[in-house]
Amino acid sequence: MFESARLPHAMTKEDFALFETKLRESLLNAQFELAEQKRAATVVLINGSDGAGKGEVVNRLYDWLDDHFVETLSYGPPTDEERARPGAWRYWRDVPPKGRIGLVLGSWHHRALRNRALGRLDRVAYGNTLEEMNRVEEMLRLEGVYLLKIWLYLDDREARRRLAGLRQADGAMRRPVVLEWEEIDTAKERARLNEAALEMIEMTSTGDAPWAVVPADDPHYRDAAVGDLLLQTLARASSTAQAIAARTLAVAAPDLALPRPSVASALDLTQKADPDAYGAELRALQRRLTAATTAKSFRDKGLVLVFEGNDAAGKGGAIRRVREALDPRRFRVHGVAAPTDEERARPYLWRFWRNIPRRGDVAIFDRSWYGRVLVERVEGFASRDDWMRAYQEINDFERQLHEAGYIVVKLWLAISQDEQLRRFEDREAKPFKRYKLTPDDWRNREKWALYEQATTDMVDRTSSRHAPWTLIEANDKKFARLKVLRAIVERLEK
Amino acid sequence: MFESARLPHAMTKEDFALFETKLRESLLNAQFELAEQKRAATVVLINGSDGAGKGEVVNRLYDWLDDHFVETLSYGPPTDEERARPGAWRYWRDVPPKGRIGLVLGSWHHRALRNRALGRLDRVAYGNTLEEMNRVEEMLRLEGVYLLKIWLYLDDREARRRLAGLRQADGAMRRPVVLEWEEIDTAKERARLNEAALEMIEMTSTGDAPWAVVPADDPHYRDAAVGDLLLQTLARASSTAQAIAARTLAVAAPDLALPRPSVASALDLTQKADPDAYGAELRALQRRLTAATTAKSFRDKGLVLVFEGNDAAGKGGAIRRVREALDPRRFRVHGVAAPTDEERARPYLWRFWRNIPRRGDVAIFDRSWYGRVLVERVEGFASRDDWMRAYQEINDFERQLHEAGYIVVKLWLAISQDEQLRRFEDREAKPFKRYKLTPDDWRNREKWALYEQATTDMVDRTSSRHAPWTLIEANDKKFARLKVLRAIVERLEK
Repeated sequence: MFESARLPHAMTKEDFALFETKLRESLLNAQFELAEQKRAATVVLINGSDGAGKGEVVNRLYDWLDDHFVETLSYGPPTDEERARPGAWRYWRDVPPKGRIGLVLGSWHHRALRNRALGRLDRVAYGNTLEEMNRVEEMLRLEGVYLLKIWLYLDDREARRRLAGLRQADGAMRRPVVLEWEEIDTAKERARLNEAALEMIEMTSTGDAPWAVVPADDPHYRDAAVGDLLLQTLARASSTAQAIAARTLAVAAPDLALPRPSVASALDLTQKADPDAYGAELRALQRRLTAATTAKSFRDKGLVLVFEGNDAAGKGGAIRRVREALDPRRFRVHGVAAPTDEERARPYLWRFWRNIPRRGDVAIFDRSWYGRVLVERVEGFASRDDWMRAYQEINDFERQLHEAGYIVVKLWLAISQDEQLRRFEDREAKPFKRYKLTPDDWRNREKWALYEQATTDMVDRTSSRHAPWTLIEANDKKFARLKVLRAIVERLEK
Repeated sequence: MFESARLPHAMTKEDFALFETKLRESLLNAQFELAEQKRAATVVLINGSDGAGKGEVVNRLYDWLDDHFVETLSYGPPTDEERARPGAWRYWRDVPPKGRIGLVLGSWHHRALRNRALGRLDRVAYGNTLEEMNRVEEMLRLEGVYLLKIWLYLDDREARRRLAGLRQADGAMRRPVVLEWEEIDTAKERARLNEAALEMIEMTSTGDAPWAVVPADDPHYRDAAVGDLLLQTLARASSTAQAIAARTLAVAAPDLALPRPSVASALDLTQKADPDAYGAELRALQRRLTAATTAKSFRDKGLVLVFEGNDAAGKGGAIRRVREALDPRRFRVHGVAAPTDEERARPYLWRFWRNIPRRGDVAIFDRSWYGRVLVERVEGFASRDDWMRAYQEINDFERQLHEAGYIVVKLWLAISQDEQLRRFEDREAKPFKRYKLTPDDWRNREKWALYEQATTDMVDRTSSRHAPWTLIEANDKKFARLKVLRAIVERLEK
């Protein structure tokens, strides 16, 4: 994988100056096109040996680019904030918005390589990690984030020689150097690192995001090569994003209207709570919820509650009964409004990743990432390709939460069409409830059958082993609240 | 994953008859479009419980479709022929050509599930297998093979009841039944199978090839649902294949002509064999090759030799020296000609998979699957997207060979431009060599620099851990032949 990088590469100062003049103009043009189109972000991952010039490359890119639209994203040992959340959270929160360029030092690849070299990941787990990367990177691309993965290659001996030359007698460095590999110490660790790097470059070089191995022996050549690669990537990002936006796949199969029973239609919505026993039962469940979320063992976990359901199904009331049982410092309710500009400029899941609580806390989502396969699907806001791939992306996302110790409880509150009508009319009649009813609610109601189909597909495709759906019969509000609490408490107590 | 499938599904005979009338017409139209366009193949994988009606579904599809363009592909325990080759070979050799529909019983998913249920794959290895499937299925799609993955769902108890009803007193079956799960016997195996099936449906339901879980309690509904899914798949296959064929991604980055040293240019082509020692050395190496390929231990291995190189670099002569040392019953030389109609109608790698030897044998490829990233790239026969993803596909392919016990030796024979000219002129001058020189050879020569770049990328991207390239300095034919033999013998003896 390093064959051509091992050849001598040199560029005279004069050749470099000539090349640089052409490059800068092209790079700025490409960058402005990216910034204007706002259809794609570009992220440059700068990996490689210490001493190969990772920091110098970043500085050079700042010289060449308009630094208003560039940001450095650098990852060292995780902070307390980061350690309290799933491993990927630190990268997600930094995803640059469309139109911008991110320069990454210490990418997720570095983390995996380090853990493999130190023996914290065995061969098979490492292989799995690489496969997951491929999937995340593919998702990023489809969501408009284009990666340029650079490996600065320098012969080991030469790298050590350069580092030694930069170190002063007192141990300080003559120039700022990005040191990432100081922990890798023993011969065994070094050997594992080299093997792991080869495997990584082999396994994660996809057609859309291949590794670019850049020879780092000559700084002029190295920087020119990185600049050239960035130029190509910017052009591809702009033109591919344009092509994706323009794509229209006509699928012309006639609809034969095969009847499909919906999961909601199979529910017995006549179920009611016993009004006399309700209060005591509610308080008992709430006490169990309080106990479970304040137990010492809960500090290593996290609770993610997803509330979805028909309009007016009583999500708010159910959430209130859950909320009452929680420590007010340790939960947060997230409603889903129209996405902000900031959210729209980033991959879909970003807006939810940013709200993943630290361990020991509870996040309540009143509507959630399922919007993509419900309202966005039914209303045509997302293309079929986009919502079809969302099921797998959501399962991946929730599996990451599960693996990081979170408990994901997903609740679908179902009411009948008649009951919904009754509640809408009630809302219209009562001034203090009127704000809860919008013209959208009436419009959604007309698409009842489409929503039922979307719901059925959602339950079928995302009731995963680690994060199953619980369907809540919600025509009777009290019955629904008890069942919601019971579902949460039982998952927690397991 | 089975939520909606567990609901009762029923269709009266009358409703089915009406539905069937519409369906048949639409299906035949869609099938003829597929057959006429010849841009895509469709493969229906029919998996699920025994007793759910896998065989009945296949028969029904034959009733509905034009059976001239349909074939059943059925996989039971591997044959001797299949066991002697890598696991994927049996599926590869059966890939239907574009324009046709394949109905698969016992797909690769079945094999993985079975091995997991029987405890022959542990959890992690099973997870890896699922990831590999995703990659292969994505590759198939990009190469024009569209999958419809059906899981016929029937409650366990009901499935057993139906099977019992079909069995006569003497053990024979009243109707032909596809029995795939008889080996899964113990409660532990059954539990592992159920868990593995859920995991499979979750992990391999991609946006482009999701599993379709079809309720099998009512045969009418079941068949109607399968027919409807096939109709949708045929429409998507045709329209997606059309869109892929029409795609043109303009990548408009200016070419700044960064100089890139080629791996070939770094070779010392003046190296010569000692003519006096040549004969003895050649014979010694040939004897070692004979010994290594006739040793008992070789019977579990296989040898795949890939010869690539500049035109007139002496591949033929080198192959002859290898061939002489091999048992004539145990090798075969595969030249690469223009693809046949049959090959063009299938995924690119199919033409090479069909020539993978059984273990104990030797396949010599005089040019190979690297054509896609060499001549097809340089001549523009493959789109950039296609040859860019080919590196990973090739690495996957060669890794499969490695894991199945094959030794893959890849040799690049390099000569200088001057030496090539000398050899071309020599070929022109000698009548018996003239057939070896074509106008293409002269044209390729004009693209020397492009071929050098493509070769460098190829070596960089496919010198994998298990199948590295060996570069052969070939200006001196004798030197080249000795180095070729040495490279092969040393890999075999390792």
